[in-house]
Amino acid sequence: MEQYKMFELKFEGSCPNGSEAVVDLEAVFTNGGESRVVKGFYKGNGTYAVRFLPEKEGVYKWKVSGCVEACGEETCVKAVDGSAHGIVRAVGTHFEYADGTPFKPFGTTIYAMMHQKEELIRQTYETLAAAPFNKVRYCVFPKHYDYNHNEPELFAFEKDEDGKWDVNRPCFAFWDHFESGILKLQEMGIQTDLILFHPYDRWGFSALSLEQCKIYLDYLLRRFSAIPSVWWSMANEYDLMLKHPMEHWYAFEQFIAENDPYHHLLGNHNCIKFYDNSRPNITHCCVQTAWMEKAAEWMRRFNKPVVYDECCYEGNLPYNWGNISAFEMVHRFWSACTVGAYCTHGEVFLSEDEVLWWAKGGVLKGESPKRIAFLRSILEELPGYLEEWENKWVADAENEEFQKVMERFGLLRESISEAELDALDRKDKDCRGHYGDKVFLQYLGRHCNALLSWKLPKGHKYRVEIIDVWNMTRETVLTQCSGNIEVQLPGREGMAVLAVEECL
Amino acid sequence: MEQYKMFELKFEGSCPNGSEAVVDLEAVFTNGGESRVVKGFYKGNGTYAVRFLPEKEGVYKWKVSGCVEACGEETCVKAVDGSAHGIVRAVGTHFEYADGTPFKPFGTTIYAMMHQKEELIRQTYETLAAAPFNKVRYCVFPKHYDYNHNEPELFAFEKDEDGKWDVNRPCFAFWDHFESGILKLQEMGIQTDLILFHPYDRWGFSALSLEQCKIYLDYLLRRFSAIPSVWWSMANEYDLMLKHPMEHWYAFEQFIAENDPYHHLLGNHNCIKFYDNSRPNITHCCVQTAWMEKAAEWMRRFNKPVVYDECCYEGNLPYNWGNISAFEMVHRFWSACTVGAYCTHGEVFLSEDEVLWWAKGGVLKGESPKRIAFLRSILEELPGYLEEWENKWVADAENEEFQKVMERFGLLRESISEAELDALDRKDKDCRGHYGDKVFLQYLGRHCNALLSWKLPKGHKYRVEIIDVWNMTRETVLTQCSGNIEVQLPGREGMAVLAVEECL
Repeated sequence: MEQYKMFELKFEGSCPNGSEAVVDLEAVFTNGGESRVVKGFYKGNGTYAVRFLPEKEGVYKWKVSGCVEACGEETCVKAVDGSAHGIVRAVGTHFEYADGTPFKPFGTTIYAMMHQKEELIRQTYETLAAAPFNKVRYCVFPKHYDYNHNEPELFAFEKDEDGKWDVNRPCFAFWDHFESGILKLQEMGIQTDLILFHPYDRWGFSALSLEQCKIYLDYLLRRFSAIPSVWWSMANEYDLMLKHPMEHWYAFEQFIAENDPYHHLLGNHNCIKFYDNSRPNITHCCVQTAWMEKAAEWMRRFNKPVVYDECCYEGNLPYNWGNISAFEMVHRFWSACTVGAYCTHGEVFLSEDEVLWWAKGGVLKGESPKRIAFLRSILEELPGYLEEWENKWVADAENEEFQKVMERFGLLRESISEAELDALDRKDKDCRGHYGDKVFLQYLGRHCNALLSWKLPKGHKYRVEIIDVWNMTRETVLTQCSGNIEVQLPGREGMAVLAVEECL
Repeated sequence: MEQYKMFELKFEGSCPNGSEAVVDLEAVFTNGGESRVVKGFYKGNGTYAVRFLPEKEGVYKWKVSGCVEACGEETCVKAVDGSAHGIVRAVGTHFEYADGTPFKPFGTTIYAMMHQKEELIRQTYETLAAAPFNKVRYCVFPKHYDYNHNEPELFAFEKDEDGKWDVNRPCFAFWDHFESGILKLQEMGIQTDLILFHPYDRWGFSALSLEQCKIYLDYLLRRFSAIPSVWWSMANEYDLMLKHPMEHWYAFEQFIAENDPYHHLLGNHNCIKFYDNSRPNITHCCVQTAWMEKAAEWMRRFNKPVVYDECCYEGNLPYNWGNISAFEMVHRFWSACTVGAYCTHGEVFLSEDEVLWWAKGGVLKGESPKRIAFLRSILEELPGYLEEWENKWVADAENEEFQKVMERFGLLRESISEAELDALDRKDKDCRGHYGDKVFLQYLGRHCNALLSWKLPKGHKYRVEIIDVWNMTRETVLTQCSGNIEVQLPGREGMAVLAVEECL
């Protein structure tokens, strides 16, 4: 048993009498004064398993009861290879692993990744191995949509004699296979942002009843909760699921909170109406929107991380959600990350073979991933997490006229609607982040400044560099500076300026 | 006397006893059963003038009274050179000259054009002669602001013995000179969008009292109202004028409405808070904003033309209002014009000599004007005015599932805030315009479609072309088509598709 690695106990037994999803099997793991109860599950072929994620070193005593009775103990040691850091958790407005290692999500989207043929899945893994992504959003259920017409080989459940899905009979081959994907990605250092429900369906999974959904969730949680790399995304576009009123979402949320012993990250992805991200069980704001300017406000409001899990996709589809340029994708990543939020990639280029990355994986064709890698490398070398560096209208105490204008600005801003204020900020507001006094970053986006003036704190010494986010160049232009600085810029889109405190 | 050309009567007399701005002089012009009363003004040096803009052919009898008494008659004939079309007026959501000739404004901004040295003004005229702009926004009062520090030679008024502006003593040299600019532009086919007040002032013009302002306006209206090419822009950034509460703006509006016999176009330009464009005297929505998506909504709401008179400027300043790229400027023009709104250009490139086009004129350095010319040429060859071609979610009557999703979309859209709805539309909504069944235009903007599907009306035949708004190319891809069409596109930003009904 290694800390932060899934531990599994297996038992042989007779087949369950009733439900094969919800079996009478649980275990208590006790280490020192702390106990945790986990449920076991049926793997098929007379095999039962109990999984546990040990988060502390020391001796765990375990006791299994129900359709299997057993007990024992294991010594949990620090994982030898150093790669296991535990579950990613939200801490304030950012993420970190259980062991405190920072985690900055750079996600991509491959909705039906695990419903493709083995060869294509293998190719997807290969692509991901060389890509900058450390999180993949994908679905348990297959996807029926434009460019998504192939029939998967396996489904989550067996059918009953009427040809209807029997949620009490998991298709074990499906779950074994699906799980192999989660574990493979985990090995590669990639988190699984697992989409539990979605509306794009021709098989009936989106029309399961609340009770059926809970049985499905129960099996899934028994099986996957001990895998540290999993996040729960309740849905993709929850609000388009015609069969699930809001009460169902609250019920799913509660069920997950009660049945996931580890409280993995939990979000819910919208189409039109944002989920209520103030709800206590929701760990982070998972949003579909290109409203990049809102990140800092949402972080302040919810005190949770913000992830733009769908901000449109790089590509050339005849749908506006799927035809932004690589530059625009990179622009959205920088817009989010500069203020301490995160963004998720997706790619949709029309192709003869109907293999679009966003649904099926395969190879990446776009121009954004290498720029996302560049951004990731910059963010990961920073000594901490960015948060918004607010645009303060600094009133020069001596300039009375200026003070009056600032006061007028304030009054005017209070007198207009939220939508008008947004429009104003979209036009005027700088996109800036900082980490205490150590890091200052401004992403200029579509602004083509030839000059940028900053007021850096005095009593520190900074190295200042100009970053070209598209051409992926970094040029140090000032060293050992502080206070008022001016930076000359080339006057084109896609520039950033970064000041990092120099080690003295 | 020629139709649509200013007619002037001049009289010698003694200097006014009191105010030189508000003199006792008026005239009645009568043609057939119609009479119009106009006020005369003092030109200095014992000269009085009465100006009149004849809009009808026929015999005008005139009678001057007050400090000058005279009468006579003139026969008004159609202007021989065919260049005079009268005052531009708002008709529904578009503009046309009094004689019905279409007018589609393509403006630029040169705030302090007439406060520069003669040589620079001459250069500005030369530049304008080769530029695509048919409207210029500029101020009566000089401008004090960054990159605007030079002292003008002339001001609108003389000073009193205390060194304060005496609005009752117009500086005639100023008015003669200023007027020469309006007339010069008019000769060139360029409208003057005259900014009557603005806040960027070190001389005191922004702090005149309401009564002083009315005297200034009175003189200005007596003098300029008969010039057909003038529009009244009450202010630039009215809301930043600390000395003028809303009552003043309503008073100015009313004064102008009552004292301009011809009711020239009247708008009021905002910084933060849009002026109330529903007010009856306001002829069009003059807005500062980059909220291009709102145009069609505002046109529907106000049934008035919408002009984005300030949508940021092409340039490289360290201010976000002055550093958009040429592409972005062109993008904003196309975004406005496609749905039947209009946009105004401005240019601010840092330069050693502090001559920035937006304030002082001179030469154009940017890359947007030639693309604006390209857009203008396309719009002007269309057989009519565009209006929004609405994005209708066309429900296939046979597809019940699709109907339900559309219904859900509708309900969801009703359940979110205006700001959320805007964010959604900004991401998803197509930018499309049409002129009846004769013209259909979609500007794809930052969308990189490789394919576009349209449903054109049946029973017509269209020629369809692909336009590259940046590279200024037009390629006909379909002829004699109707109904469902598909257009292949190159999958990059800045493309438009235009269908025009073919003459059979």
